[in-house]
Amino acid sequence: MTEIGTDLVDVDRFRRVLQRRPGLAGRLFTEDERSYAATANDPTERLAVRFAAKEAVMKALGCGIGAVRMVDIEVVRGDDGNPSLLLHGSAASLAAERGLVSFKLSMTHTDTVAHAMVVAE
Amino acid sequence: MTEIGTDLVDVDRFRRVLQRRPGLAGRLFTEDERSYAATANDPTERLAVRFAAKEAVMKALGCGIGAVRMVDIEVVRGDDGNPSLLLHGSAASLAAERGLVSFKLSMTHTDTVAHAMVVAE
Amino acid sequence: MTEIGTDLVDVDRFRRVLQRRPGLAGRLFTEDERSYAATANDPTERLAVRFAAKEAVMKALGCGIGAVRMVDIEVVRGDDGNPSLLLHGSAASLAAERGLVSFKLSMTHTDTVAHAMVVAE
Repeated sequence: MTEIGTDLVDVDRFRRVLQRRPGLAGRLFTEDERSYAATANDPTERLAVRFAAKEAVMKALGCGIGAVRMVDIEVVRGDDGNPSLLLHGSAASLAAERGLVSFKLSMTHTDTVAHAMVVAE
Repeated sequence: MTEIGTDLVDVDRFRRVLQRRPGLAGRLFTEDERSYAATANDPTERLAVRFAAKEAVMKALGCGIGAVRMVDIEVVRGDDGNPSLLLHGSAASLAAERGLVSFKLSMTHTDTVAHAMVVAE
Repeated sequence: MTEIGTDLVDVDRFRRVLQRRPGLAGRLFTEDERSYAATANDPTERLAVRFAAKEAVMKALGCGIGAVRMVDIEVVRGDDGNPSLLLHGSAASLAAERGLVSFKLSMTHTDTVAHAMVVAE
């Protein structure tokens, strides 16, 4: 069985949401995700594309907002620099329930739009 | 065998096309698709992302514009709110010919761009 | 095993890069790719979407910029008009190493953004 998810995020809109709600980044992203984003000239681009990744995973899991904690879907980088997904807690449980054992991720962004796609098997 | 399709639609451009050609929506979308779109603040966003879905299916089927009727590719929503694809008539025949039995769909949009991806197996 | 890649390219930004660096197109694209692009009203859109395709393949291969020659990843069109991928030299070697024998490609663009996705198995 294959499940897929794709998501687009408007970078400037996401920037305004994060500015308006100072506690939000801490609820959406793990400490490692925020640390990695903070090393970029524009951390918001990296956060936006990671938010897109989390939404794409939720679509692949077939669940709506609130069914899993966003920090339970984590984007990590391997030694080769390639991004991959780590599922924790609620997200890992749901994936197991659905019989999904492999999650592939690819991400990209321009200055204005961030995009992630996920294929789960 | 896996076939894939992706599509982007410029929402404002699609809005202008629909306004200029009043009969077009009826040829592109099923009654259920139009009813569902009509419940949104901006129906065009939902129609644009469904048009992207239809185009993505056509790419997965490897066929050009005109080979299948657009209303034969229908985006439906399950009880869980997740979108999926129903193929009718010409689209169902072509899928059977190509040996494609499962079509997975994911859709997303910002204010300006709508996107759909399809993986068929 | 499935590997995936997606990429977005800002068409106007890519246009300015190509204008600023006259030799770049020859290093990025094969002669056939440039000839095909040249038959369009706006060749840059076709080049941008092909650049996105090459980047998506590199992500599916899990390699960074410089690991393969961009001209070793070629987008060709079949008699039916559908685009597909041909890997040569460095890209073909790396795909073989990774055990990837099938590369599926889908491409799309609006006036402002070009997008390609790749699923490799």
